[in-house]
Amino acid sequence: MLDVTQTPLQQLLRDRRRGYTLPAAFYRDPEIFRADMEGIFKRNWIYVGVEPDVAEPGDVMTVEVAGASVLIVRDDDDEVRAFHNVCRHRGARLVHEEKGTVGNIVCRYHSWTYDLAGSLLHAEHMGPDFKACSHGLKPVHIRSLEGLLFICLADEPPADFDEVARRLGPYIAPHNVRNTKVAFQSDIVEPGNWKLTMENNRECYHCAANHPELTVPLFAYGFGFSPEEMDDYDRANAERYGCLIRDNHRDWEAAGLPSKEIDELDTMVTGFRTERLPLDGDGESHTIDTKAACKKLLGDLTNAKIGGLSLWTQPNSWHHFLGDHIVTFSVLPVDATHSLLRTKWLVHKDAVEGVDYDLENLTSVWLATNDQDSTLVGYCQSSMESPAYEPGPYSPNTEMLVEKFVNWYCGRMADYVGRRS
Amino acid sequence: MLDVTQTPLQQLLRDRRRGYTLPAAFYRDPEIFRADMEGIFKRNWIYVGVEPDVAEPGDVMTVEVAGASVLIVRDDDDEVRAFHNVCRHRGARLVHEEKGTVGNIVCRYHSWTYDLAGSLLHAEHMGPDFKACSHGLKPVHIRSLEGLLFICLADEPPADFDEVARRLGPYIAPHNVRNTKVAFQSDIVEPGNWKLTMENNRECYHCAANHPELTVPLFAYGFGFSPEEMDDYDRANAERYGCLIRDNHRDWEAAGLPSKEIDELDTMVTGFRTERLPLDGDGESHTIDTKAACKKLLGDLTNAKIGGLSLWTQPNSWHHFLGDHIVTFSVLPVDATHSLLRTKWLVHKDAVEGVDYDLENLTSVWLATNDQDSTLVGYCQSSMESPAYEPGPYSPNTEMLVEKFVNWYCGRMADYVGRRS
Amino acid sequence: MLDVTQTPLQQLLRDRRRGYTLPAAFYRDPEIFRADMEGIFKRNWIYVGVEPDVAEPGDVMTVEVAGASVLIVRDDDDEVRAFHNVCRHRGARLVHEEKGTVGNIVCRYHSWTYDLAGSLLHAEHMGPDFKACSHGLKPVHIRSLEGLLFICLADEPPADFDEVARRLGPYIAPHNVRNTKVAFQSDIVEPGNWKLTMENNRECYHCAANHPELTVPLFAYGFGFSPEEMDDYDRANAERYGCLIRDNHRDWEAAGLPSKEIDELDTMVTGFRTERLPLDGDGESHTIDTKAACKKLLGDLTNAKIGGLSLWTQPNSWHHFLGDHIVTFSVLPVDATHSLLRTKWLVHKDAVEGVDYDLENLTSVWLATNDQDSTLVGYCQSSMESPAYEPGPYSPNTEMLVEKFVNWYCGRMADYVGRRS
Repeated sequence: MLDVTQTPLQQLLRDRRRGYTLPAAFYRDPEIFRADMEGIFKRNWIYVGVEPDVAEPGDVMTVEVAGASVLIVRDDDDEVRAFHNVCRHRGARLVHEEKGTVGNIVCRYHSWTYDLAGSLLHAEHMGPDFKACSHGLKPVHIRSLEGLLFICLADEPPADFDEVARRLGPYIAPHNVRNTKVAFQSDIVEPGNWKLTMENNRECYHCAANHPELTVPLFAYGFGFSPEEMDDYDRANAERYGCLIRDNHRDWEAAGLPSKEIDELDTMVTGFRTERLPLDGDGESHTIDTKAACKKLLGDLTNAKIGGLSLWTQPNSWHHFLGDHIVTFSVLPVDATHSLLRTKWLVHKDAVEGVDYDLENLTSVWLATNDQDSTLVGYCQSSMESPAYEPGPYSPNTEMLVEKFVNWYCGRMADYVGRRS
Repeated sequence: MLDVTQTPLQQLLRDRRRGYTLPAAFYRDPEIFRADMEGIFKRNWIYVGVEPDVAEPGDVMTVEVAGASVLIVRDDDDEVRAFHNVCRHRGARLVHEEKGTVGNIVCRYHSWTYDLAGSLLHAEHMGPDFKACSHGLKPVHIRSLEGLLFICLADEPPADFDEVARRLGPYIAPHNVRNTKVAFQSDIVEPGNWKLTMENNRECYHCAANHPELTVPLFAYGFGFSPEEMDDYDRANAERYGCLIRDNHRDWEAAGLPSKEIDELDTMVTGFRTERLPLDGDGESHTIDTKAACKKLLGDLTNAKIGGLSLWTQPNSWHHFLGDHIVTFSVLPVDATHSLLRTKWLVHKDAVEGVDYDLENLTSVWLATNDQDSTLVGYCQSSMESPAYEPGPYSPNTEMLVEKFVNWYCGRMADYVGRRS
Repeated sequence: MLDVTQTPLQQLLRDRRRGYTLPAAFYRDPEIFRADMEGIFKRNWIYVGVEPDVAEPGDVMTVEVAGASVLIVRDDDDEVRAFHNVCRHRGARLVHEEKGTVGNIVCRYHSWTYDLAGSLLHAEHMGPDFKACSHGLKPVHIRSLEGLLFICLADEPPADFDEVARRLGPYIAPHNVRNTKVAFQSDIVEPGNWKLTMENNRECYHCAANHPELTVPLFAYGFGFSPEEMDDYDRANAERYGCLIRDNHRDWEAAGLPSKEIDELDTMVTGFRTERLPLDGDGESHTIDTKAACKKLLGDLTNAKIGGLSLWTQPNSWHHFLGDHIVTFSVLPVDATHSLLRTKWLVHKDAVEGVDYDLENLTSVWLATNDQDSTLVGYCQSSMESPAYEPGPYSPNTEMLVEKFVNWYCGRMADYVGRRS
């Protein structure tokens, strides 16, 4: 109707100011959201769950990514496979629950039947000219990184996943994800663009004022700080914290627990960062009393006091590996202004609820933290329609990882837009 | 924002693959939905209800078609008329209920008053220059086919309705729609594009796996089958069913009940199909026990065992005329992904609820079937955003009528787009 | 997808028929809604509330106008200020309640802290290069017209506000808005475009048939009438009403209460109209028994029987100043088809609920009237998707002010579109 002059995405990316939040259109525009789905979520490795989600042959899980419903199934040879959850006949969705167990994959509409390797076994009434072999389920790329499942909807996924797996594997292996079970899963829809959810995760500048539970096990000095603003007391504490990290890293690495920071957040296509950090208090876990929430430790670990290994992957995940449990998060965009945050708590697969762990104790810190973060994300989203919003400056001391997330995003989008033009 | 290259409708129609479902855009795109409303629902005869809906002078019914609210009223000369339900003053909607009885049609806003023939009788304060005669209600074309009401929003409706009425009239007449009453009406909103609702109706390939109630009175062999897949037992049964139809048609036609198939689903602008088929079990009605649900039979019928006369009209209706009752369905698109399915059960107007018929027994088969179909339609709609969806093949043995529906739709749309360009 | 030819706004404005309602696009099109926000709500003085909403230093109120959240605060020097409610760091909304009291304005995300004059007092961890003085809250223009608060989101607000204040001030002053309190506030979302809500307010042609409560204190002859349609009885009554106004105006003006009509509804950028009119019955107030609802009269008034001073401002307000209370309305567009109607009832600030006034008696007339109007607005909105809607004629006797509203709107929009092209 109106000839509203709209700035092309390419120019928005070129003009954006480094070290500042993005222009509002990136957080609210449905067209940019669609571009995000094409340029980011259909091209990159997306974290979606863990092998224990499909522990046994026939176990199936579905996940929605960028408009695609994907079914992940463990086949009879114990291999985890992924397929588009779409019948090749009339397009009906095949599996309707998030989790289940099947023999074959049978469409409820006209009973077309696929095996766990995706082949069409049976379709009635289709006549002699019909070729079943041309109507198998469409496969989706899937990789397991020590039990963490990543899918890629592109025909040719980013090749650097092998390198990521090689470098990250030794960090994760001691926590033995494959030997865990999902003790609890929480799905919440945050009232914000997925990038606001990610930016919120990439800094702890907001933790002191908003996360009373999370700041119990975490050291405040780990969040970053401006050295100019510190008094002597602060400076002494920060120094002590630095020593603690150095000592711990030395001990943990000696004990076979890789701990030193790797940061490839904006330097690889499959960007990631990891580091093992000491915990405050009793130093055992992300719990209110900072003690292990589960008596059975993970893998072959015999000591709970091994700090927390944090892992971040672009574009949509973060994870905390403790000695006694793992908390793992994936962000799945819903629309331009809503994002699903899926959180899973993993414990040793032989741990017994009520005996080895108490579910409320296990989950309370991050359930509370997620709720608080969701509110904060909504506060930012609220302003994205305001004529007064303009990109604001990231703190050079506490928001470096946010900046790296935004840099990675802009780089990947520029690459996508460039290829299309 | 983005220069997403969008395929024009004309090209999508030209490129579509015959014998396959349509490309996803036809089932999800709001622009194509708007084109459907212009090209199909504002140009063709749309089935909206029955004369018994407005049995007495002053009875009024409203129906929403393609953004238009239409009021259908029986005037004081017993003529059924249709008007746009819009006051000519400030545009206020005039009648707000789906059914009612009025003397005149009075706007609640400023009391402008129209008679049942649509003339403006009274408008206060409009001054001496105001011409009431230029401000009557805008008429809508309406035709009654033996009591079935069809409206057309176009200035010049398709002319072939006369032929349709001439050929269909003798099939419907024995069931005497005008002498019935609406015993029950159900409105459900299916979570799918109207074409998915129609396609679902045009085949019974899905019945065996999904409609335990409906398959009691219906013969399985009536749904179509692939001869190559049959064993001797199946073949013998199918042959017996063929003989049954031939014998029944001969007897029914001799008794004054036209029964033989007419199929003009994709060969006329006002496409339709009809056929009378024997029923399974006791062979009397669409009920769980296959016996008549109403003791008073329709019209002058004296025998309930006359099978079921089915009628399909393009773009939006189907009907089952039994000896004891009629079930009649209209599909009214809501938006690109939602469709209203309106079902009415008609019985003899003198039949008494609780004496001649039990409402639950009368309605249970189709209430259950509609619910099941709504779920199936939703399964297909779910996949229309998936990058993996692609048009799939219709069964040449069981989905011929679906294909004819799609052919009719594409032909009408090509005609519409052609005229506009 | 389709090449739907859309008429540009400029041409729609040029082609519209004077004396008739607007084409449907103006009441339903999201693009025109966006243009309304830019051309009307971001350029003109918008009525948003009263000084008693922020009676004390630190009192803060938020209001949503055209996508902007604005916070209005009384600072420590008793000055009322307005700011965009957006943190300059990550854009988080600052104040989340409609009403509150604060010391400073503290962002809940990272604790950035602003004083009541909008300056950034404190932002942690931002490093030595960060300039706090460049990151203050963005101010919004605000004016108090004898206690009525108007904001303007434009950089350069319409300059004629001074003239409006000069001419209107003496009418309002005797009711002493600043010396009142908000006894009750009602927010309802009407199911219609904001212009339908405004048009509904600008005439009382619909009152007789729809507002049984409001028509008790109001004289029917005040709504306008067609002289041609009157009989001798009507004519005599209308004449008596004319005399009553003349006599009352003479007496009231003599007593220091300006009363004569000023009408600049479509002749000024900041269009307005005011007039004091006698009330029917006991003539004291907008109540069911037409008596004063509050024992404590406003300002220095000693007599409740001073009729009702009505005030209308373009684009979004109307007000009724009685001797004992004030009812004041603002319309805040939500989207193309929904509008927030905010109504406040003001009484003397020392009046005590239950002693000096009864809340139900105070509010019942306008709560009922608002509900009735909301329904009527919805009736019109319902037709805006209908192909049958076309602009209809305004009554030259009862809808003159509606016409002036539409003229003002079209003039302002033509000016806006002209400047942009």
